[in-house]
Amino acid sequence: MTHKRTIDPDLESLRDTLMGMGGVCEEMIHLAVKLLLDHDAALMDGIREREEKVNRLHIEVDERCLRLLALHQPAAIDLRLVAAAIKVNSDLERVGDQAVNIAETSLHLCRLPPMRLGDIPRMAELAAGMLKDALDSFARGDVELARSVIDRDDEEDRLKSSTFSELLALMQSDASTIQRALEHILISRNLERIADHATNIAEDAIFMVLGKDIRHGAEREAGPQGLPEDVQA
Amino acid sequence: MTHKRTIDPDLESLRDTLMGMGGVCEEMIHLAVKLLLDHDAALMDGIREREEKVNRLHIEVDERCLRLLALHQPAAIDLRLVAAAIKVNSDLERVGDQAVNIAETSLHLCRLPPMRLGDIPRMAELAAGMLKDALDSFARGDVELARSVIDRDDEEDRLKSSTFSELLALMQSDASTIQRALEHILISRNLERIADHATNIAEDAIFMVLGKDIRHGAEREAGPQGLPEDVQA
Repeated sequence: MTHKRTIDPDLESLRDTLMGMGGVCEEMIHLAVKLLLDHDAALMDGIREREEKVNRLHIEVDERCLRLLALHQPAAIDLRLVAAAIKVNSDLERVGDQAVNIAETSLHLCRLPPMRLGDIPRMAELAAGMLKDALDSFARGDVELARSVIDRDDEEDRLKSSTFSELLALMQSDASTIQRALEHILISRNLERIADHATNIAEDAIFMVLGKDIRHGAEREAGPQGLPEDVQA
Repeated sequence: MTHKRTIDPDLESLRDTLMGMGGVCEEMIHLAVKLLLDHDAALMDGIREREEKVNRLHIEVDERCLRLLALHQPAAIDLRLVAAAIKVNSDLERVGDQAVNIAETSLHLCRLPPMRLGDIPRMAELAAGMLKDALDSFARGDVELARSVIDRDDEEDRLKSSTFSELLALMQSDASTIQRALEHILISRNLERIADHATNIAEDAIFMVLGKDIRHGAEREAGPQGLPEDVQA
């Protein structure tokens, strides 16, 4: 189910900027994981460049949200879009940080012999796909796609646990793997956090479209001003 | 430097609710660390109760921010307060999640023999103090206090690195410690993230008061509408 509607050009531009920022974050994840898998340290420069770009966009998006609130005084779904954009902006900036963390740990692993990766490649693919679909659900107002992102988070948690168990067993059976296995466990935590941020974005997309807060098991509906019925003044 | 000003009662009430939520998060950190240090599994119930409270407040604060934006159309510092509250609310909810993660890992450690903690107690004290001061700086508009929080984040990172080195060396010298040392390293990462959230809150406090975005090394000033000069329409 995709909700189409006419949109203020400034809101459309805000949404496009966020989507562009999200695209840069997706590239950062792909590069960081490629650095890990291929032991290719030269990819770090491209990641750093994109980190600076994301940091600039982070500040720019916040400024644009404040300007929209001050000058346009949006209501209903438009207000929820701007409030959601403030949150999605924070999540994306932190996704970029996580990608940098993965790349820095991987850079360190480049200097060590390669080893078993557990479910890390699968975790990376799942987290990147969740982020992509969360951003698409936000851009298109696609509630079903957003719900599918939220559903996939359990699988990411399952993979995190199986990676932990596998690498712990490896460390215990072969002490020469301790440092490398530990660094791989930290990378799996970074990937899990990227999936968490994607889940947050999907929840924000649903709230923006439906005015329904589905976080923490709540299902609260928005009234005509874009506010949950029971808090309207 | 504390900035005093008259404030809309609804904004004051929003700020008080956020401070109350922050207080519950501080309690969660203290209980989680106590669970770790005292091996006292009975503390888990109090942590779970507070987690539910934080989750309820998380939804309530977002609703109140939207209501304030829709009905009061705040400007300048009031607008920046509401925008900051949306972000502080997310940070606090995630601080609560981190405390729960620490408690869950500690619950597991309760069943294993105690071991060396590295700099974890110091990291916990520092992170909890940073959160407390970040919230105070937000409540009082105290820019100097906020800057002191941001400065302390480097010390937390240093302690994270020394804990990692110490526990890695322990794992490598005594295989019987591998699982426990690994879980302690994960707890140190949770504490580092709490310090990161405190830093985010301090940055939001500075932006709220000065209209200056100091993130990512930027120093952008707000104009009369609460917006950075160069983005005013």
